[in-house]
Amino acid sequence: MAKIRMGMIGGGRGAFIGAVHRIAAAIDQQIELVCGAFSSDPQRSKDSGSDLYLPEDRCYGTFEEMMEKELALPESERMQFVAIVTPNHVHFPAAKAALEAGFHVMCDKPVTLNKAEAIELKSIIEKSGKLFGLTHTYSGYPMVKQARHMAASGMLGEIRKVVVEYPQGWLADAIDTEGQKQAAWRTDPEKSGAAGCMGDIGTHAENLAEEISGLHVDELAADLTAFVPGRRLDDDGNVLLRFEGGAKGILMASQIAVGEENNLNIRVWGSDGGLEWHQKEPNTLLFKPKDQPAQVYRTGNEYCCDEAKAATRTPAAHPEGYLEAFANLYLNFSKHIRAVEAGEEPCSVALDYPKIDDGIRGMAFIDAVVGSSAKNAAWTKIEA
Amino acid sequence: MAKIRMGMIGGGRGAFIGAVHRIAAAIDQQIELVCGAFSSDPQRSKDSGSDLYLPEDRCYGTFEEMMEKELALPESERMQFVAIVTPNHVHFPAAKAALEAGFHVMCDKPVTLNKAEAIELKSIIEKSGKLFGLTHTYSGYPMVKQARHMAASGMLGEIRKVVVEYPQGWLADAIDTEGQKQAAWRTDPEKSGAAGCMGDIGTHAENLAEEISGLHVDELAADLTAFVPGRRLDDDGNVLLRFEGGAKGILMASQIAVGEENNLNIRVWGSDGGLEWHQKEPNTLLFKPKDQPAQVYRTGNEYCCDEAKAATRTPAAHPEGYLEAFANLYLNFSKHIRAVEAGEEPCSVALDYPKIDDGIRGMAFIDAVVGSSAKNAAWTKIEA
Amino acid sequence: MAKIRMGMIGGGRGAFIGAVHRIAAAIDQQIELVCGAFSSDPQRSKDSGSDLYLPEDRCYGTFEEMMEKELALPESERMQFVAIVTPNHVHFPAAKAALEAGFHVMCDKPVTLNKAEAIELKSIIEKSGKLFGLTHTYSGYPMVKQARHMAASGMLGEIRKVVVEYPQGWLADAIDTEGQKQAAWRTDPEKSGAAGCMGDIGTHAENLAEEISGLHVDELAADLTAFVPGRRLDDDGNVLLRFEGGAKGILMASQIAVGEENNLNIRVWGSDGGLEWHQKEPNTLLFKPKDQPAQVYRTGNEYCCDEAKAATRTPAAHPEGYLEAFANLYLNFSKHIRAVEAGEEPCSVALDYPKIDDGIRGMAFIDAVVGSSAKNAAWTKIEA
Amino acid sequence: MAKIRMGMIGGGRGAFIGAVHRIAAAIDQQIELVCGAFSSDPQRSKDSGSDLYLPEDRCYGTFEEMMEKELALPESERMQFVAIVTPNHVHFPAAKAALEAGFHVMCDKPVTLNKAEAIELKSIIEKSGKLFGLTHTYSGYPMVKQARHMAASGMLGEIRKVVVEYPQGWLADAIDTEGQKQAAWRTDPEKSGAAGCMGDIGTHAENLAEEISGLHVDELAADLTAFVPGRRLDDDGNVLLRFEGGAKGILMASQIAVGEENNLNIRVWGSDGGLEWHQKEPNTLLFKPKDQPAQVYRTGNEYCCDEAKAATRTPAAHPEGYLEAFANLYLNFSKHIRAVEAGEEPCSVALDYPKIDDGIRGMAFIDAVVGSSAKNAAWTKIEA
Repeated sequence: MAKIRMGMIGGGRGAFIGAVHRIAAAIDQQIELVCGAFSSDPQRSKDSGSDLYLPEDRCYGTFEEMMEKELALPESERMQFVAIVTPNHVHFPAAKAALEAGFHVMCDKPVTLNKAEAIELKSIIEKSGKLFGLTHTYSGYPMVKQARHMAASGMLGEIRKVVVEYPQGWLADAIDTEGQKQAAWRTDPEKSGAAGCMGDIGTHAENLAEEISGLHVDELAADLTAFVPGRRLDDDGNVLLRFEGGAKGILMASQIAVGEENNLNIRVWGSDGGLEWHQKEPNTLLFKPKDQPAQVYRTGNEYCCDEAKAATRTPAAHPEGYLEAFANLYLNFSKHIRAVEAGEEPCSVALDYPKIDDGIRGMAFIDAVVGSSAKNAAWTKIEA
Repeated sequence: MAKIRMGMIGGGRGAFIGAVHRIAAAIDQQIELVCGAFSSDPQRSKDSGSDLYLPEDRCYGTFEEMMEKELALPESERMQFVAIVTPNHVHFPAAKAALEAGFHVMCDKPVTLNKAEAIELKSIIEKSGKLFGLTHTYSGYPMVKQARHMAASGMLGEIRKVVVEYPQGWLADAIDTEGQKQAAWRTDPEKSGAAGCMGDIGTHAENLAEEISGLHVDELAADLTAFVPGRRLDDDGNVLLRFEGGAKGILMASQIAVGEENNLNIRVWGSDGGLEWHQKEPNTLLFKPKDQPAQVYRTGNEYCCDEAKAATRTPAAHPEGYLEAFANLYLNFSKHIRAVEAGEEPCSVALDYPKIDDGIRGMAFIDAVVGSSAKNAAWTKIEA
Repeated sequence: MAKIRMGMIGGGRGAFIGAVHRIAAAIDQQIELVCGAFSSDPQRSKDSGSDLYLPEDRCYGTFEEMMEKELALPESERMQFVAIVTPNHVHFPAAKAALEAGFHVMCDKPVTLNKAEAIELKSIIEKSGKLFGLTHTYSGYPMVKQARHMAASGMLGEIRKVVVEYPQGWLADAIDTEGQKQAAWRTDPEKSGAAGCMGDIGTHAENLAEEISGLHVDELAADLTAFVPGRRLDDDGNVLLRFEGGAKGILMASQIAVGEENNLNIRVWGSDGGLEWHQKEPNTLLFKPKDQPAQVYRTGNEYCCDEAKAATRTPAAHPEGYLEAFANLYLNFSKHIRAVEAGEEPCSVALDYPKIDDGIRGMAFIDAVVGSSAKNAAWTKIEA
Repeated sequence: MAKIRMGMIGGGRGAFIGAVHRIAAAIDQQIELVCGAFSSDPQRSKDSGSDLYLPEDRCYGTFEEMMEKELALPESERMQFVAIVTPNHVHFPAAKAALEAGFHVMCDKPVTLNKAEAIELKSIIEKSGKLFGLTHTYSGYPMVKQARHMAASGMLGEIRKVVVEYPQGWLADAIDTEGQKQAAWRTDPEKSGAAGCMGDIGTHAENLAEEISGLHVDELAADLTAFVPGRRLDDDGNVLLRFEGGAKGILMASQIAVGEENNLNIRVWGSDGGLEWHQKEPNTLLFKPKDQPAQVYRTGNEYCCDEAKAATRTPAAHPEGYLEAFANLYLNFSKHIRAVEAGEEPCSVALDYPKIDDGIRGMAFIDAVVGSSAKNAAWTKIEA
């Protein structure tokens, strides 16, 4: 037995999320980085690979070259999947190339530049017979799995209300025009897509709300704003939600909420109880049963559900965080790859990671919020 | 010198808010309860007064009787103001009677049953030359005053976003039809007005948002729901806000949020900093200056603003709460009465309590949310 | 029926705790302040009384005069009990005078200047047949009563460990020598007694630990320090505790813990569960049952014990605080007076306030910590 | 350039801390596990290595065999350091063997079974010229480094008081006699040493207190207890501390504090400010400057000190936790190895990990608490 071999597209020197993916893939020691097309500048790609102790001949200048050269290697050496960690506009062509070359794909979110690409990607995946994972990181937290379990098992009764928020403050000033690379591409419609804040983090909030509640948003009314003068995409948005089945809700995302770091949080209320989770203290989940004292669920305890336990490496109050949540996606994805390559039925944990349908919903959400906001917050269906 | 003499309309045995008003008036020992029309049932009024150690002859069966009999007393004995603590539909006639009889009025909120009454009440107040206070309790908290001060003094920069929430869970079941008196009148349009949850607590949220931000809501889009089958008024609502000057926001209020007690909270973000306050831990105010560690402001410290200090009785971490916040309204109102009766200019603290204009805005807010929701959350101006 | 009539000894202009006692007595409108010996300076006493709207002829220059003149009044007018709110050294003579004159007494803590006085006071009380209450404020909090109830009813199993802390920071500098009156007397052995910090706040911590656990401290080892140069009494102390029955513990009190406001807190652990309470957020009590999620008990809920409910005026999350906790002592004391004066058996709530035996234990605690520290933290019994 | 090659002693199937070390070493992708003596049972060692995708011929049955066989490999293949993750009694012989064979050593804590071994180990290290790291994990947290920086740079003024606590509850019952392997060796003097709770977690608390304050404990008075009947080593302890220079303090550690998970926390107070840090929410550090609002320092912000920044991989509020803190020790250790092997001067970050002197202090601390407790909490010097 050997580790699963990963190649990476994007994530060269100076990138942010590429390093996160590499750590996430490394934590559980099930995956080995064997090659990369880290940059469209071949020398930069080689330099980036050198930083990672990769041999020069497996640091490619383009993802096309990567596919070709890797396919030329013996099966036991060549990469088994690629991680795509580029700006959004490269997701689709890179994923298409990898899947058609016969490689599994783990892709950063939002899945593509627009919904049409996402739908096309789904048919490419299906044709390829390969696996496709999407890094909606926050679904990897044990307490998100616990919350999902509690909602699904009826502990909340009938769900009536969902409030999900994702405020950040790092784009409160015009740093996107002052050379901050992360900010620049996220506020550029060519690279980011139709939405700014809503695409970058609003989709995480939408994914979290649907993942935990088990409900799909049916329609929404969105009021998006670009507060920073000259910015071309929204940096803030307030959205009313109506779920299938009658639950109501609010989704708020902002990148101009000064003083907020990365304050994703969610509250769900049903007829029998409520739930509350804050990503900045992710190992705690508050459960509020009707007429009883609230209960403080904590990761690493025997009373947690199986999916939460499988996503936990340490005893209670040895806190795990963002990188471990991210790693849980890679861990389950690697289990799925192993099962598939061994011709075995994957266990349920091996299937517990976001996939193309989550990506399509995310793109449909972006279309809906942008469309609604353009019509002065008219109610707009999520068409996914 | 003597204490200010108060009469009370409503608040007999079994009432909730009347007892709160009496405690609030008693705390600072500036006000003495001297009479009451505690119930429309004369015997019940007398029994209620007896519980309060009042002489039988000053416990009246109607507020009309109260006005007449009190006016017949020597000026040094008769009440100087009335506190109106009845269900909403009695506010207007009682206030009208008192003002026209020459008494100052402290009134529970929402100020009247509808906006027309509120506007008429304003002209009655002006004609009477008497004082009128409205018990938007939460504005009485020292840290709300501190927040208002910090926003007004520019510490947040230009305000961009306001999120105010008021979730409760006590009406999650149909207790209004099962004999719970507090629930019954609040869900009855005849006694409560056009809105349920939005009138009862949504108006507090609206008042808090405008009080702290110093901005008026210009228009809103509201999605109100009655989740409990058969309920005639909203028990939940999600509202998009647009403020004059371009700030955006969200107002959420609910009485079906199971597990929430009385969780009023507000966050304000400006171009230079953010603020966060939670009523359930009211002595703490979080200030989040840009790019600096957040600062934990606490009541009872030298660094607080003058209005906050004037609203604080104890040293830091000798917590004060809801009753003291309520008392601050009465304390400032009593100072205003003293100044007026002495023919003196009131100090600024004596003017620091909610008045009829806050009440009119509250009624206009109710009209707007109910009107917007009836039109599927169409944008609707607050006409106040 | 009429309100209970209270006189006050001490608490003139500029005093701190006198105003707190008056508020506490006023909140529930069961008690009326009718007279006072607010200061040993007769004019200052009259001026202080005038601030409180008292007639000049019931503002006395000495407590001896107060006893004499009040006794000369008709029984239906004269005060029924005195509240003693002076510095510590006056507690004993004032209480003695009042009891021997036939008045009930509510006294601030620590009860006397030393243990001998406390023991003598106990026999004076017994001889007088009058009631004596001691304002260990913190025992008045609903969640302290809830904690006591949960420990007593076996929810913690056998208690093994108690950690009680009372850090403050206000004496971190030599303000006692710079004209701060509150600081000056507290650091003066003539007025404060043998201990400084340990007498002022350490006794509160000791009282809380014994009240909640239901266990008496058997012996202790104390390391007291005066950190501020020139200070004559301890301003900090760390104490090991051994309880009767084998539980162990720690008591820490400090007045030089910079940045701490009034951070009294306690944790109790038994064989089956733990408890945690923080005075600065007093309406929350954390219960930690073994192998289960922790439970967040909150005041104002149906699931609270009867004593906690009787000590609560508002619904959940309408926070009550320090003044209401203080008021609970006065409320129960007033019920006890009513019962006694009516010749009735008091209900259990009417007996739920600290009494002379709590005071004697406090003095014995002071003797023990001071004695232990003088012997380099030798184990020392609490002899009460 | 290549990754640093690590061998492991201990940490076979079913072990806890071995897996943690492997994750910690993997996170930053600077270290590669190449061999192990995972168990004294050769087959179990091979099976354990197989789980980790290691070749069979580098899974050894004893650490002696490991040294011999690794030395026989070409220098570019053989391990460069060993991680020792066995129960305590094996630390010394394994470390001695590795150092004398010319390998660097990263060792779990407490460093040895007793102080004599620790002192002997120091001379072995010095003779070997090899590096020795000790995994006092908690010193690896960014906010611990920030706290250390703030204390060292004078932001607290003169330090007066340190309270460090480490309550856990997992040994509240006699699970050590019921087959729980982790519990069994920790409560066995042959394998754990002279102390139970104090060795296992008390040493972490001692290390943290000295690391942050920059002060050495001079003497202490300890009251240790074995609450669970039949247990041979302490499962709880309360300790008074006196630091060099006059600061005082408390150290509390417990493994019978039911409901506590792993609640290491520390508070430090100086003449100008205080600090507070809780391991269960490790990315937050509270700074309490005198007479100012408390400040909430958070990892991942520009205002953090350089050492904290170097120990942080993610932006603010992408929480890092225990595994990353652990990884920071390995990361800095790997930098030190690289510098030494390249013949270069290590940067200051490369030196920022606990070493043998921390280990000796830990053993001296154990001797002192055990010795003090045996003499009924007599003051006892820490002789290190």
